[in-house]
Amino acid sequence: MTAISGKNFIAGARCANGTTPHRSVDASTGEALPWTFWQASAEEVDQACDAAAAAAARFRSTSPGQRADFLDAVAAEIDALGEDFVAIVCRETALPSARIQGEQKRTTGQLRLFAEVLRRGDFLGARIDSALPERLPLPRPDLRQYKIGIGPVAVFGASNFPLAFSTAGGDTASAFAAGCPVVFKAHSGHMATSELVAGAITRAVERCGLPAGVFSMIYGSGVGEQLVKHPRIKAVGFTGSLKGGRALCDMAAARKEPIPVFAEMSSINPVIVLPRAAERRGVVIAGQLADSIVLGCGQFCTNPGLVLGLRSPAFSAFGEVLGSALQGKPAQTMLNAGTLRSYQCGSQHLQDTDGIRLLAEGAADGQAPARLFGADQRLLLEGDEVLQEEVFGPASVLIALDDKAALLRGLEAMQGQLTVTLIGDDEDLEAFAELIPLLEDKAGRLLVNGYPTGVEVADGMVHGGPYPATSDARGTSVGSLAIERWLRPVCYQNFPDSALPDALKRDNPLGITRLVNGRASTAAA
Amino acid sequence: MTAISGKNFIAGARCANGTTPHRSVDASTGEALPWTFWQASAEEVDQACDAAAAAAARFRSTSPGQRADFLDAVAAEIDALGEDFVAIVCRETALPSARIQGEQKRTTGQLRLFAEVLRRGDFLGARIDSALPERLPLPRPDLRQYKIGIGPVAVFGASNFPLAFSTAGGDTASAFAAGCPVVFKAHSGHMATSELVAGAITRAVERCGLPAGVFSMIYGSGVGEQLVKHPRIKAVGFTGSLKGGRALCDMAAARKEPIPVFAEMSSINPVIVLPRAAERRGVVIAGQLADSIVLGCGQFCTNPGLVLGLRSPAFSAFGEVLGSALQGKPAQTMLNAGTLRSYQCGSQHLQDTDGIRLLAEGAADGQAPARLFGADQRLLLEGDEVLQEEVFGPASVLIALDDKAALLRGLEAMQGQLTVTLIGDDEDLEAFAELIPLLEDKAGRLLVNGYPTGVEVADGMVHGGPYPATSDARGTSVGSLAIERWLRPVCYQNFPDSALPDALKRDNPLGITRLVNGRASTAAA
Repeated sequence: MTAISGKNFIAGARCANGTTPHRSVDASTGEALPWTFWQASAEEVDQACDAAAAAAARFRSTSPGQRADFLDAVAAEIDALGEDFVAIVCRETALPSARIQGEQKRTTGQLRLFAEVLRRGDFLGARIDSALPERLPLPRPDLRQYKIGIGPVAVFGASNFPLAFSTAGGDTASAFAAGCPVVFKAHSGHMATSELVAGAITRAVERCGLPAGVFSMIYGSGVGEQLVKHPRIKAVGFTGSLKGGRALCDMAAARKEPIPVFAEMSSINPVIVLPRAAERRGVVIAGQLADSIVLGCGQFCTNPGLVLGLRSPAFSAFGEVLGSALQGKPAQTMLNAGTLRSYQCGSQHLQDTDGIRLLAEGAADGQAPARLFGADQRLLLEGDEVLQEEVFGPASVLIALDDKAALLRGLEAMQGQLTVTLIGDDEDLEAFAELIPLLEDKAGRLLVNGYPTGVEVADGMVHGGPYPATSDARGTSVGSLAIERWLRPVCYQNFPDSALPDALKRDNPLGITRLVNGRASTAAA
Repeated sequence: MTAISGKNFIAGARCANGTTPHRSVDASTGEALPWTFWQASAEEVDQACDAAAAAAARFRSTSPGQRADFLDAVAAEIDALGEDFVAIVCRETALPSARIQGEQKRTTGQLRLFAEVLRRGDFLGARIDSALPERLPLPRPDLRQYKIGIGPVAVFGASNFPLAFSTAGGDTASAFAAGCPVVFKAHSGHMATSELVAGAITRAVERCGLPAGVFSMIYGSGVGEQLVKHPRIKAVGFTGSLKGGRALCDMAAARKEPIPVFAEMSSINPVIVLPRAAERRGVVIAGQLADSIVLGCGQFCTNPGLVLGLRSPAFSAFGEVLGSALQGKPAQTMLNAGTLRSYQCGSQHLQDTDGIRLLAEGAADGQAPARLFGADQRLLLEGDEVLQEEVFGPASVLIALDDKAALLRGLEAMQGQLTVTLIGDDEDLEAFAELIPLLEDKAGRLLVNGYPTGVEVADGMVHGGPYPATSDARGTSVGSLAIERWLRPVCYQNFPDSALPDALKRDNPLGITRLVNGRASTAAA
């Protein structure tokens, strides 16, 4: 079996100076796996952050092409992780191997998408205003602007995507693309997986001749706080719970030098089934929706946790079919015992709430059963917190509303979401067109006649949204726009050409499109 | 004289339901001006925020061209404010009328620049990934993304630019351009000025048939806290002191729903005079630098507050000429008595610091004299806070460093700045090239052989920088990029063409450049 040392990755070196051991667990059986991981000591966290800061200027000054090669090298190293690797991920997460292989491809595809973004060069945001020496009353100086990496980024991986949202996931890939060194805090749910991926990144750093401080990875609980408070860290990426994300935001905001945190946290992803669609194809929709609800055992950020419609015989019938479909779903193993516990706990909390009842439940067998709850519209109209709380697992809450006015009021009362979905026929979409501006206010991604699970890695994707879906609606953690979170603009005034970065040199050596005196141009300027 | 009512502007209506009066003061004489301004009541603040929220969806859905027309209309209304207006601004701020007339032009020029940005359409960030129905293992949906206004923005004006950084200043103009309603908190230093500008904006809102909630303005002290904590407000713009800006950031971060704050706060704008330049043209540089230090009585965010060089006879001679030049400058009236008091207080604090001494002082005459202080390099190397504290007024601190290594260490220890300037000849810039990556880390704008006062309103400008220069280095408060602060991306998945915003419709009715399947294109998609 692949060797796992359990040591931290500190700027290319492997260290275990701490004294607190952690064990990884087989997610299906609960038994401890044979490796010990050593929590990073305070000195090791310091070393990682200092090395990241020392590497920052050189890393961000590499050409976009060099960073693209680096991302391709990381992708190739991860592609090369074979069956042993997949087996370890499966043991640590109880996810099926086909899903892990798919996620491995998604992760390397994501790295390669950022390589493309780098070669395209639009992320640089190059802008040039030529000098106007004759302008009155005062001459205009030569002004040139582009975007550079913000500095070392602390990234916290998610448990539910041990590859695509973890060590070499979207936050790490986009930070690297921006030219920012990453100090990664390994998730306790898949430490051996993280070690193997960190090894792949470290080999790529070496192969590309980059400073070793470009990447570090630390193990442990409690080390995250030191990381977020470390003066060398300039931004934070996080995917996880509202409680965890908000705690990081509060720490970052209270620093002497506050730093931005991009936390993707809590979303219940409402699906609105409009009347005509419910009438004409309620059975088909119910089947598709049930599949989306149980996909990955409901362990997706975009799992549809709320289903809304207008009260009618057709919507009632739809609800019954949805319930039956979920009843027929087999139980699934969750990521770990803690996740199952919180799923049961969240379900119980729903069931104990006045106005909510369990409508249908699938098989359990000591694992996670699919569940459909019904809730009174009052809870939505009053903006009850119970509906906003994400119950992480294969569950959804169904609500029938009296009429369109109630639907509008209910959506208005709702908090921020990653996604909102409209299922509707053409007449529906016309009759409910006024929903759309409201949904724009509430979510980062709006879907028509689809299901929110399945987050495409693409230029157009937004995996973000108003609080509490994320901590900052201006970012996305999936898709190429994710790079913008880690960039800041710098202006060079009256610089001699030789002292300018390539992106802004007169002859445009990178051959990128630049905004020159208000017009897009690839010409010399 | 122009009529001033002293009432708040609440979504097009004039209200004064509060009971706390405020008086505006003649900045030169200290005497109270004949108008009473009524602090907004809590209900009035609520009304302004609720009206802004109610107007938000309609305002952000206007076409970029409609918003451009609106900005042009605001500019025309402000252009039409005549001599009476200028006289009032001069009385409230003690700024000379030529400066006010220039600032009036700058303000309307800024509004018109954003109108151009709107017509150009690149701020929309339109991105399209076409559906790939045949893709395996899963089809790709149609994904379309663009950026929309974040929602109502609270703007706090600065005292030092009563027009360009106030009621219709850069924050308001960029928020309007983004499609965000603005609730403006008038600065107590120029309430009559603010009333006249708010009237101009209100007339433009009416003329353009926009919802009245697009703009409100409130008077008073303490109302800012309610504004920043109001659940309808989604972002904050501020220009002012570090203490004031940080307080707003802390309030915003502690909200149930935290919101972004773009605060431009404190910068001492180091100017580094390199050895050859000091040797060859020290006298000329000293004269130009002295002019920059006293410009606008030193009341500019980018005033050069720190002058660095390597210890040498030439640098000593340069310092002497700089001191003499400042000694010869006449005293100037500051914006108000409070500003003069804090200038005196800040100067005294410098003088009382061990290692700092007064080198030269201009005429006083009960007003603000120009001052040059000398400081030991130790204070810079140790990152002493006394050097970071902006002394708002015509003062600067001169430091001679032992050698290049000391200069590098001193800059490394320095906090974030709006600007850093290098004065150097070609050989200097070559010999000191390693400074540049360090300066990029420290400031939003880097100048060569210029002076930081004078902030061009242009596409390429960055008026921002790492904390404490601003609260978020990823923004700028001057120049067209300022619009990005108020935008968030939204993705539309599988939307029928008719339900898409114009920016994303198949036939590209706005005629903008879009990123279509990874390539810039104006074609249908």
